[in-house]
Amino acid sequence: MAYDASTLPDVSGLTVGIIGGTGDQGRGLAYRFARAGQQVLIGSRSAERAEQSARDIAALPGVAAGAEVTGADNVETARRSDVVIIAVPWDGHADTVAALREPLAGKLVVDCVNPLGFDKQGPYPLRVPEGSAVQQAAALLPESRICAAFNHVSAPLLADPELDRIDLDVLICTEDREAAGIVAALAERIPGMRGIYAGRLRNAHQVEAFTANLIAINKRYKAHAGIRVTDL
Amino acid sequence: MAYDASTLPDVSGLTVGIIGGTGDQGRGLAYRFARAGQQVLIGSRSAERAEQSARDIAALPGVAAGAEVTGADNVETARRSDVVIIAVPWDGHADTVAALREPLAGKLVVDCVNPLGFDKQGPYPLRVPEGSAVQQAAALLPESRICAAFNHVSAPLLADPELDRIDLDVLICTEDREAAGIVAALAERIPGMRGIYAGRLRNAHQVEAFTANLIAINKRYKAHAGIRVTDL
Repeated sequence: MAYDASTLPDVSGLTVGIIGGTGDQGRGLAYRFARAGQQVLIGSRSAERAEQSARDIAALPGVAAGAEVTGADNVETARRSDVVIIAVPWDGHADTVAALREPLAGKLVVDCVNPLGFDKQGPYPLRVPEGSAVQQAAALLPESRICAAFNHVSAPLLADPELDRIDLDVLICTEDREAAGIVAALAERIPGMRGIYAGRLRNAHQVEAFTANLIAINKRYKAHAGIRVTDL
Repeated sequence: MAYDASTLPDVSGLTVGIIGGTGDQGRGLAYRFARAGQQVLIGSRSAERAEQSARDIAALPGVAAGAEVTGADNVETARRSDVVIIAVPWDGHADTVAALREPLAGKLVVDCVNPLGFDKQGPYPLRVPEGSAVQQAAALLPESRICAAFNHVSAPLLADPELDRIDLDVLICTEDREAAGIVAALAERIPGMRGIYAGRLRNAHQVEAFTANLIAINKRYKAHAGIRVTDL
């Protein structure tokens, strides 16, 4: 029962779609999955922007020539992907997710959105009526399989072509044990990352909100902080 | 500005009092500070129980003969300590803290209490009207200096005499930068630990609540998980 990556499923054949794939977090994740040889589909409201972003990512250092990185609008991306990462700004989260209910039915949906506000004192967690962004997604997508994950990965680190490894753990909150294994295996595709099951959806709020602490840590120590779970 | 333990203050002369020092978390912290050579004062509602607990801790492996580990009732403990750790069950938190307002005036108070509930599905964070346990303490102790810290340290690891090191980071939330340095220096006294400033009190809720995730991780992976901040 200890953490053992060798027990995780083979996910190398899955297509990963990224809704909000033209934003910093989405683009960074797309780049890392493309570097790892995963099929990646960039989603955006505009298919043209998504296609341009896909071409840009395919040309980045470390992405193999012939890597399958393509772009499409959000509906097409949802429909054609096996695993769909939601990486939109919190502002547009509910509307974007609700509009994709039909194409996301039966899909594994990974929400990495952090509902944060900012004022003069820095970042702070916003109250979400459903409890967390991922619980809002679960309420809006009753036919999908829902996880929170990749909440803490630093967009600048993801985007830095000099970095071969990103040493941190991806915390996965879900009700769906098999989905947790698939997402953990995807996290493992990025060198340095592990995917750790970290509780049910009702315990996702504090994982999302903890991003405010990471931003405070980054400011204080001039870092791009993440977390590693100890004793695993 | 990177993390640099050499910039932390010398805290070797401070007396650390532990309110709730006869509980698992409090006793474990007392043991580790006693091993590190810190003067430790165990607090309990009953002075007799506190004194017995202090004698027990002084006799544990790794605590130097002649180490200053003593016991007293909570009021005496608060009065005679420089830094006072609140390690009581959440149930008794407000009453215990409110009763110590006068002896805690001017003291550095470190709250490590995690407001959690448990049901058939495991642990979950409780709603606290003030936002978090430490914000409740701040409201009840207007003349004290307040930090949250030591929320994630595992009581079984603290108590294990075979362990020379406990490799994890202590996250410190506070409005008081100097207090953060003192608490970080105290954390550094325990081999393997670092003390990391992790934001203001309004961002302490998710640190406390994250203990529910650590419990889920412990259950899933048969571990005593903590966290390490990466890139520091």
